[in-house]
Amino acid sequence: MNPIESYLQRNQRRFVKELCEYLRFPSVSAEERYRKGMTGCARWLVGHCRKIGLEAELCRTDGDPIVLARAPRQRSSGRLPHYLVYGHYDVQPPDPLDLWKSPPFQPRIVGRSVFARGASDNKGQHFAHLKAVEAYLRTRTALPCELTFVIEGEEEIGSSSLAGCLREHRARLACDAVVISDTGLYSLKHPAVSYGLRGLCALEVTIHGPSRDLHSGSFGGSVDNPAMALCQLLAQLRDEWGRITIPGFYDDVAPLSPFEQAHFDLHPFDAEQYRRSLGVRLLFGEHGFTPIEQRSARPTLDINGLTSGYQGSGGKTIIPATATAKLTMRLVPHQKPKQILAATIQHLQRLCPPTVRLRVTANHSSEPYLVSPDGELVQAGREALRCAFGAEPLLVREGGSIPIVNEFKRVLKADSLLIGLALPDDGAHSPNEKFNLDVFARGMAMSAKLWPILAHVQHLTTVSTDPRTRRAKHEHPHPV
Amino acid sequence: MNPIESYLQRNQRRFVKELCEYLRFPSVSAEERYRKGMTGCARWLVGHCRKIGLEAELCRTDGDPIVLARAPRQRSSGRLPHYLVYGHYDVQPPDPLDLWKSPPFQPRIVGRSVFARGASDNKGQHFAHLKAVEAYLRTRTALPCELTFVIEGEEEIGSSSLAGCLREHRARLACDAVVISDTGLYSLKHPAVSYGLRGLCALEVTIHGPSRDLHSGSFGGSVDNPAMALCQLLAQLRDEWGRITIPGFYDDVAPLSPFEQAHFDLHPFDAEQYRRSLGVRLLFGEHGFTPIEQRSARPTLDINGLTSGYQGSGGKTIIPATATAKLTMRLVPHQKPKQILAATIQHLQRLCPPTVRLRVTANHSSEPYLVSPDGELVQAGREALRCAFGAEPLLVREGGSIPIVNEFKRVLKADSLLIGLALPDDGAHSPNEKFNLDVFARGMAMSAKLWPILAHVQHLTTVSTDPRTRRAKHEHPHPV
Repeated sequence: MNPIESYLQRNQRRFVKELCEYLRFPSVSAEERYRKGMTGCARWLVGHCRKIGLEAELCRTDGDPIVLARAPRQRSSGRLPHYLVYGHYDVQPPDPLDLWKSPPFQPRIVGRSVFARGASDNKGQHFAHLKAVEAYLRTRTALPCELTFVIEGEEEIGSSSLAGCLREHRARLACDAVVISDTGLYSLKHPAVSYGLRGLCALEVTIHGPSRDLHSGSFGGSVDNPAMALCQLLAQLRDEWGRITIPGFYDDVAPLSPFEQAHFDLHPFDAEQYRRSLGVRLLFGEHGFTPIEQRSARPTLDINGLTSGYQGSGGKTIIPATATAKLTMRLVPHQKPKQILAATIQHLQRLCPPTVRLRVTANHSSEPYLVSPDGELVQAGREALRCAFGAEPLLVREGGSIPIVNEFKRVLKADSLLIGLALPDDGAHSPNEKFNLDVFARGMAMSAKLWPILAHVQHLTTVSTDPRTRRAKHEHPHPV
Repeated sequence: MNPIESYLQRNQRRFVKELCEYLRFPSVSAEERYRKGMTGCARWLVGHCRKIGLEAELCRTDGDPIVLARAPRQRSSGRLPHYLVYGHYDVQPPDPLDLWKSPPFQPRIVGRSVFARGASDNKGQHFAHLKAVEAYLRTRTALPCELTFVIEGEEEIGSSSLAGCLREHRARLACDAVVISDTGLYSLKHPAVSYGLRGLCALEVTIHGPSRDLHSGSFGGSVDNPAMALCQLLAQLRDEWGRITIPGFYDDVAPLSPFEQAHFDLHPFDAEQYRRSLGVRLLFGEHGFTPIEQRSARPTLDINGLTSGYQGSGGKTIIPATATAKLTMRLVPHQKPKQILAATIQHLQRLCPPTVRLRVTANHSSEPYLVSPDGELVQAGREALRCAFGAEPLLVREGGSIPIVNEFKRVLKADSLLIGLALPDDGAHSPNEKFNLDVFARGMAMSAKLWPILAHVQHLTTVSTDPRTRRAKHEHPHPV
């Protein structure tokens, strides 16, 4: 056992105690009444980073401050690679409070889990990285790289200040890659690296009919019903095979490589158990793809909300003046949100009958993301997980979107390595959120292993001094 | 000019003053805070009926009291026919108050209109009948019939106490017909008798998908979206020709007779002006029928409301757990609400995909209503209108439903004569509701004329003493 492993093992109890201290702050970014929890938490975090030997500061923004904490520069024979570790100290609102078995900001340990809001999303996950770096610094083991923590306070409300901060501190944040632990693993036996994320394209579709709600008796039958027009419009967007009918929708979709498919087959995924966990009678998705593929590697169109006319109890005999639907499409590489949005609007306009008026509003969007599943970045992450968990790490694509990954790519030209430490039942965003302490321990071990492995890869690849050439290895492996 | 005409003319100003007194009561049945307005109004009405010579009483119910007011029995050579005049003293809530140009319960006369909540719906309309009867009583002119006013206080909230009252007082309310002024006329030049009403069948359709709202990123693509399933289900209920696709839906629909069609052609209906008034780009209805037919003589299916998932501002990336639609079908003779409801549920069940669960809840329903447009009852009404308005009265079918008409039929076996006194722009249920004072004057004249005409018809037809034979003349003229 090397000094770092030994340090991590010896100090487990203290680490858990410190994590609980961190979890005690009600750092809810979404609600003004938690303001004190936010500032208290950010200050505590800066203090804690300094205590373990990092050079930490609060980076002020228009919103919540971002904690920047850098491992001290080392005297080294040459340039060391630089990695960022991203995390967020803000948490989801704890509501509904009555469903919590213990207060959300009074951490409670039951068996090998700590229950608290933010335990797994995201305090516990980035805290594992902080503790691994502490082990390096306290044991005076030379870090094989430069390291900067970027821990923001607005992830749960859209990370709107992050890009500005990255741009402002572009020079000191220039890096070789970003390491993010904010996704999941299947189990202690099935750790995972995420090498892809779906993008997003959100829009709102409104059908305008008569200038006011009409009496359905006096007028019904002689005028189109906007709610019916909306239903007929939306119904045409998906066929019976679960395929989206927007012309060109699938044109840029990267097919799964045999390598990826082989890896997906290794997932410990039980479709029947999955179906039961969702409470549906039958799963449904695009014909010809497995549920794993459907939910992560294929694009979707979902209705997120419908609003029209009377929604109270009983009835109201009206023809509503308008009907609205909120839609999101999840996009996969190499779909472009702008192109998809334009094609969708054009398709809707073509389908809309002349009896009503159509208005489409674009909401937020985000690019899909993909790094090579057999590239060096991902392989380094898998190797670190393999050492720490003693199990073969899976390769997964996330069905969700993490827009900040695109910010790092855009502003810093850096790829991200996504190594998740949340178990499927950790309940991020739900009552009784928890974080598994065994995963915490292995997460620290993984982080400790990761830096030499990553640095080794970087040293191998920095034969070429053109950073673009170096980074090209991490980029999209499947040009269509 | 006979004494009655002269009395009515001489007292116009007082009548308007009295109507304003009546309109000053905020008799809103829907809201508890207007309780005093309701009881005050009912008491005032009983007092006023007594003052003009009627035997009036408040009939207590579980809800708001019903005013029963009878013209005193006359010594007569034989049995006189008995008619009820139905009306309601309750009014719609005045909200939104800020859209009123003057306070809703402070009647204001501008030109030939009185503005107040309840002016045309329905205080002004039944007050015209009260004043006509006053003219008979005060001029000591023998009424050619017995007359009882039934003026309830729950019409705007469903008339739930009326049937019980009719049943309780069945003996004294037994009658030859019911006269109701609670519909409309086109203009002073185009008075109208309504000889048909559409029925109603209301239901709520809910699609249940996953047991909770799901993250559209983590799960989207592998599970059906209840909002999409609902849209695809509802979309199939109406074809591109505006026809409802429920099997058997049109089986019992009575076609319009050439007589009816000829009368519909006389309506001063301008489709382009109608389109503009609704604010739509194009009218739309069942192919092969005119807008007048579509909105009154053809059945419909309308979505009254849609509810699913997230409806706030911005977006929420979820697959909603459920999606709900409120539907009403307007039915025409001789469709049966029960049969239509069963056919609709069966059709929905057949269309519902196995990936979601369907729940249908039946709400209220009401039978369509039709009397012979060339029968004696309607002809009597037209004759009275012809005399009072000096114009040829139109024959119309109301697109709406007046469930109490079915109660009179069910409990008292009596048909209703619908003679409307509301102009198209009177704004029932809207801010700045008004009642036209010229229509008021002619309405009184019409009522004064109506009783001898009706009684004459009755005397002609009571040759047969079997009331069922007599009444059969008023019944559905179009057996299919």
